[in-house]
Amino acid sequence: MRELREAIQAYGVGIGDDVVKVDSFLNHRINVKLLTEIGQAIADAFREDRIDCVLPIAASGIAAALTTAQALGNVPVVFAKKGHHVNVGADVYTAEVYSFTHRASSTIRVSRSYLKEGMRVLIVDDFLANGEAIEGLRSILRQAKAEFVGAGICIEKGFQPGGKRLRAEGVKLVSLVTVEAIRDGKIIMAGED
Amino acid sequence: MRELREAIQAYGVGIGDDVVKVDSFLNHRINVKLLTEIGQAIADAFREDRIDCVLPIAASGIAAALTTAQALGNVPVVFAKKGHHVNVGADVYTAEVYSFTHRASSTIRVSRSYLKEGMRVLIVDDFLANGEAIEGLRSILRQAKAEFVGAGICIEKGFQPGGKRLRAEGVKLVSLVTVEAIRDGKIIMAGED
Repeated sequence: MRELREAIQAYGVGIGDDVVKVDSFLNHRINVKLLTEIGQAIADAFREDRIDCVLPIAASGIAAALTTAQALGNVPVVFAKKGHHVNVGADVYTAEVYSFTHRASSTIRVSRSYLKEGMRVLIVDDFLANGEAIEGLRSILRQAKAEFVGAGICIEKGFQPGGKRLRAEGVKLVSLVTVEAIRDGKIIMAGED
Repeated sequence: MRELREAIQAYGVGIGDDVVKVDSFLNHRINVKLLTEIGQAIADAFREDRIDCVLPIAASGIAAALTTAQALGNVPVVFAKKGHHVNVGADVYTAEVYSFTHRASSTIRVSRSYLKEGMRVLIVDDFLANGEAIEGLRSILRQAKAEFVGAGICIEKGFQPGGKRLRAEGVKLVSLVTVEAIRDGKIIMAGED
């Protein structure tokens, strides 16, 4: 996706050999026009898939999930919460997710009320690296007997194994931009020299 | 705001004498059409205030902040993160916030890069109860020498002191719906019998 690629070129920061820092426009400060375009791009890729619900993990997946849901004609978003929440209650599906970014495991939770058997669900997230977040969300979808239709990802780290593994399984995975490597602080994207 | 009031009447659940559970449409499952309308309503109230940036706290404030920012012509959203985040870095403003919902304190953080001196900032949140979240965000705005223009709130709990205290200070506070009481599981909103 051209707009996201240009934002990464202009404002992304590569750190070490595996961190892609895009918090100036994607997941801390949000460029709202860009996020709206991201949502349209993800929605376009899943427009024929009769999506009932978009499922991100709080907090950094919510913005792209919301704009995707807007572009899919205002389907609901259900976001998985992290940690213990008084108001979520006990009647929840849970999964453990190891976060590459935070270098820690956390429990994600979705109320059983909002994922129903047969519901066609699109997972949306800002990043795909090892795929731990998607596996946690898939576990929750299996518990709910909901259907995992596919995943829309803003930035895939092509040098980490999550994307390859999901594609080998036949998952419909749409990544708007794939980062192939980080070299000397420069973010190398697929299709570039 | 009529649409939000109707959603609360239809789907809100009052628990005990102080919990307003609206996670079927506002802060766990998100009714995207309603959230888009909420953003338009908050934006309408601040349209003449030359807002440079919308500031929510992750995670439940992000959706309303994003739709507000869309309706204000795509101004940026900067969301305060909770807890420690590897990628936020050390160069952050922080504040301690006691959450009524979670009955615990947490540290919120905003990168110093994204709040600048003189920036005109609108705080957006899903709930206002004791006002702890707003005070934490105001502390961060003071540290950044940014200007706190006002706050747009989806649901104010009128029986808790945050709203009264802010109005007594002269803060521009816009609450789309005010809940006056919870009686026998019923949510009583301002303007109702």
